[in-house]
Amino acid sequence: MTCRYWSPRVDALSPYVPGEQPQQGERLIKLNTNENPYPPSPEVARMLAAYDVENLRLYPDPDARALRKSIADYYDVGVENIFVGNGSDEVLAHSFMAFFKQKEPILFPDVTYSFYTVYCALYDIHYKALAVHDDFTIGLEAYSQSNGGIIIPNPNAPTGIGLSLNQVEQLLKKNRDSVVIIDEAYVDFGGVSVIPLIKKYDNLLVIQTFSKSRNLAGMRVGFSVGNQQLIDGLERVKNSFNSYPLDTLAQAVAMSAIKDDVYFKKVCAMIIASRDLLAKRLESFGFEVLPSESNFLFVTHPEHKAESLYAGLKSKGMLVRHFAKSRINAYLRITVGKDEENAALCDALELILK
Amino acid sequence: MTCRYWSPRVDALSPYVPGEQPQQGERLIKLNTNENPYPPSPEVARMLAAYDVENLRLYPDPDARALRKSIADYYDVGVENIFVGNGSDEVLAHSFMAFFKQKEPILFPDVTYSFYTVYCALYDIHYKALAVHDDFTIGLEAYSQSNGGIIIPNPNAPTGIGLSLNQVEQLLKKNRDSVVIIDEAYVDFGGVSVIPLIKKYDNLLVIQTFSKSRNLAGMRVGFSVGNQQLIDGLERVKNSFNSYPLDTLAQAVAMSAIKDDVYFKKVCAMIIASRDLLAKRLESFGFEVLPSESNFLFVTHPEHKAESLYAGLKSKGMLVRHFAKSRINAYLRITVGKDEENAALCDALELILK
Repeated sequence: MTCRYWSPRVDALSPYVPGEQPQQGERLIKLNTNENPYPPSPEVARMLAAYDVENLRLYPDPDARALRKSIADYYDVGVENIFVGNGSDEVLAHSFMAFFKQKEPILFPDVTYSFYTVYCALYDIHYKALAVHDDFTIGLEAYSQSNGGIIIPNPNAPTGIGLSLNQVEQLLKKNRDSVVIIDEAYVDFGGVSVIPLIKKYDNLLVIQTFSKSRNLAGMRVGFSVGNQQLIDGLERVKNSFNSYPLDTLAQAVAMSAIKDDVYFKKVCAMIIASRDLLAKRLESFGFEVLPSESNFLFVTHPEHKAESLYAGLKSKGMLVRHFAKSRINAYLRITVGKDEENAALCDALELILK
Repeated sequence: MTCRYWSPRVDALSPYVPGEQPQQGERLIKLNTNENPYPPSPEVARMLAAYDVENLRLYPDPDARALRKSIADYYDVGVENIFVGNGSDEVLAHSFMAFFKQKEPILFPDVTYSFYTVYCALYDIHYKALAVHDDFTIGLEAYSQSNGGIIIPNPNAPTGIGLSLNQVEQLLKKNRDSVVIIDEAYVDFGGVSVIPLIKKYDNLLVIQTFSKSRNLAGMRVGFSVGNQQLIDGLERVKNSFNSYPLDTLAQAVAMSAIKDDVYFKKVCAMIIASRDLLAKRLESFGFEVLPSESNFLFVTHPEHKAESLYAGLKSKGMLVRHFAKSRINAYLRITVGKDEENAALCDALELILK
């Protein structure tokens, strides 16, 4: 499909396709988009119930200063080291424009978050996708070549495999001339954040989100942490696109969530425990389960096609994610739900496998 | 300032500077960013008070279908004719990318919304800014030249001067080969919307916002109305940038607001009445007041410098907007507030002018 009024660039786009969102009212077990199975912190409900909507007639704080201060304090960095955006997807988009539009191609793994190639098409950025090993671990030695930037999720998506702080630091030591983005969307489920390294490496940008570990996919709040000059570059792009990307309620909700560290830690620990249980049971059915430091499992069955398993589960009202892409089309990505949801999924799979 | 890690494009940006947002707690009369002086519809407070925050753990509907349906019904068009975004600024940014990145330059008035040139720098789009007449009306005959697109606010900002439906239709008749965007951010305060013309002209895109007439600047909800092929072009850009630009609460709040048509019409009528009162009083002090179809007045005083008046008002805790730009630096843009705010402003001006 095309249209004579579109810019030539628009014809060439292959937009990202998010996981299915069932319409309201559909009763499904939804383990396809890595949402948190638990509601946001009770602090969020308390804040909203008392909220004075009169505020909403005014523009939000364009600098989201109070929210950035909360995040900065939490991670022990300065407010000038924090950039916030409308979901980590927007933070990523602005980062590609701010740092990756260079002569040299940027580098990322061939098996990774599939939005990266989409941003490259949108902004006309060259890239090389470097093959991950057959066990889906990332071979960092390949990233020593000359480049216009590097982006790697840690843990990686959709595999769930993590890198150690030392591995990331080795990468940074060898790559001083372009920006290295570590996309930590899933880091709170057992990975190690490299935020402390921003004080040593002025070309490191770390991106996180409130969507997963802080139970707020619905509010679209993402942020990045880095040297002030990187943050200033992001601000320049943001202020050339939309001065107020985070609405007043999103700022308030995110602040309420980050205040409640006890709840955050409890929920992450529950999900990690549920993940390990789920992995064991899936292995007992013959699944190969990649080691995961995230809130999802990436699994394959030697005797069953992934798309048939996906379809079988869907017919029973259970959504998981299947990517029809080379190298990973034998796999399913299963979000870790509550124990009872995971058990229902396993029961259904057991029937399908028979 | 620059930084060796920035993309060359980022160095060249001149980001938009929004009007000052006072920090919470500051007691000011704030007539500088064209916000609505009245709170959102009571429907919004009612909805939020009963809101189940459990929903917020899930991603929003990426297609915002329910909200788009509400807007489509209100304007008597199809849901496929509606695109929504994170404020009309995001809708504008995506529109520039989707339609205006062409070989020919785009056209807009030299006195207009100052974000347009910023989008052009961000996306490397050529433009010609066509001079408005000395009385700030737009000479549409100049727009007959070959172009890559046309964008005109109606009413124009920061002048407040409107175009008639017939004028816009004449423009559309002469310009069939590129997209014409009419930016109707302020149209509900006495202007005439050209939305009905989208059925006749497949190259017309109309952009509106919930920030002004629907009292929701804090929620960042904008939309555009046009032929389905234009909407599809916008969707392609949006889905290459951020799949979920409107958070769940923003969608819910906007739906509550558009439901309450009685409140909407009452508030718009009150602001129009207050505007006319304010204009008369300012004229009685010797101000020249441009004819306004918006919720602000653009005024100049033959004997007083605009920047001194701006500074004098600020020292009294009253914010208005002054643009230090050629052609308009003798003017102040004053948002129409509640009658008591407008009266306080006039009292202060009377003292300053003495």
